[in-house]
Amino acid sequence: MQILKTIEQLQNIRKTISSNVGFVPTMGALHDGHISLIKKARLENEIVIVSIFVNPTQFLPGEDLDAYPRRDEADKRICELCKVDYLFMPEISTMYSKEEVLIKAPNKSYILEGLTRPGHFDGVLQVVLKLFGIVQATNAYFGKKDAQQLSLISQMVKNLFLPINIVPCEIVRENDGLALSSRNVYLSTEQRSEALLISKSLYSAGALVAKGELNTTIIKNKILEIMKNLDVEYVAIVDREFNEINEIELKNSIILIVVRFGKTRLLDNIWL
Amino acid sequence: MQILKTIEQLQNIRKTISSNVGFVPTMGALHDGHISLIKKARLENEIVIVSIFVNPTQFLPGEDLDAYPRRDEADKRICELCKVDYLFMPEISTMYSKEEVLIKAPNKSYILEGLTRPGHFDGVLQVVLKLFGIVQATNAYFGKKDAQQLSLISQMVKNLFLPINIVPCEIVRENDGLALSSRNVYLSTEQRSEALLISKSLYSAGALVAKGELNTTIIKNKILEIMKNLDVEYVAIVDREFNEINEIELKNSIILIVVRFGKTRLLDNIWL
Repeated sequence: MQILKTIEQLQNIRKTISSNVGFVPTMGALHDGHISLIKKARLENEIVIVSIFVNPTQFLPGEDLDAYPRRDEADKRICELCKVDYLFMPEISTMYSKEEVLIKAPNKSYILEGLTRPGHFDGVLQVVLKLFGIVQATNAYFGKKDAQQLSLISQMVKNLFLPINIVPCEIVRENDGLALSSRNVYLSTEQRSEALLISKSLYSAGALVAKGELNTTIIKNKILEIMKNLDVEYVAIVDREFNEINEIELKNSIILIVVRFGKTRLLDNIWL
Repeated sequence: MQILKTIEQLQNIRKTISSNVGFVPTMGALHDGHISLIKKARLENEIVIVSIFVNPTQFLPGEDLDAYPRRDEADKRICELCKVDYLFMPEISTMYSKEEVLIKAPNKSYILEGLTRPGHFDGVLQVVLKLFGIVQATNAYFGKKDAQQLSLISQMVKNLFLPINIVPCEIVRENDGLALSSRNVYLSTEQRSEALLISKSLYSAGALVAKGELNTTIIKNKILEIMKNLDVEYVAIVDREFNEINEIELKNSIILIVVRFGKTRLLDNIWL
């Protein structure tokens, strides 16, 4: 595996590659969720490129940019074990200059995650577009856990007619159901145990739907009942375009949950 | 020459091309200025793609979108004569959908052209980025006449690390010095004759600089004196990054002029 720090290095190597390139953009602190993306990329492409870049423009003032977990050495080891070909680890000054052309996510970026994090998705789209420009991947792998992010990135690719295939990947969970997240390290033992109610409520919702219940108010109430002792930020049921819906449409609905544990926000969801 | 209406057609053809692609994006009403871009593209690339698309998002409310000159049949003929390989002529509904990821040009897009046309460059960058996404050109050709547009497109390419080479092309003029523009057709005979003072004042400014005059206030005054009977919107002297300057730096300065003739705005400039 080759570790690349500059854009020129990556661009020069890219020019020599004519086969399929699979790309996994990350902010590091790699866990089994990321590993599943890398493995899928490894299976489906001749060349695999992973990036690790904690992107400042997607953090709002007061958010955990400085505290965001960084584990460069462990991450490098993981990428090596996953047989990544190129690991791209640029500095902030490599990726950004002073005055920039910006990306403005559409209005639906200001609901749900965007409601508590206004402007967050502008920063996400900006860095993803930069990385797509540099890497020129055939396939790019994103987890379904950040469902709204995945939806907005897919929309950007569609709107800008980018020649890249976005591959949505399943959420990876601990054996007890907790969705993997780099932010799970912030949880105390007690919080971690309480957090299990999130996936539990999603499973119950899935079971309700399987029994034929399609009314989203009833489903939401069931979820809220299970999580009644948690600091729930939102429970939302949306279609794949992120419009809130009153009735579940099979193969086109997502139930999204965000719960706060102190300063830590945990996201989870289920795609129906 | 093949005329393409859909993005899929162009994308499918593009996949089969492995040689250099030269791209000339236009809004049609082709004149010798455009033709010079196409000829340069023809010389420097195996494949030449021209687009004709009057892009609605770069026109402000009340501007001349509906009145913008359209001469599809003449344009097709010109492209054919210039040995264009593919002419891309999409409909608005092909290029845009309802809710879109937008591009936000940097602050310097709100001076000069952006001052009278706020948001204009957001629309320009949006359509250019879409076209770049579709065409995946090696080289893209833009006239120096729209100097601020050229500067912002170059910045976008740099900021987003797009693998495309922007080729700036010289302004083409009538024998009497008038810079070619699709909007020249709006001019009355009298206005057209008055408009010659624009290029005349630029030549005089160039001569002043050649004699060693570098003070931009003196140069501007000279220009304004020559154009004293015209409705001058602005005369600006900037560096290549579009910062206003007090002293000419050779090989890094542009003198920009905009003059109004009724509703018609004529742009011209000289690169020193």
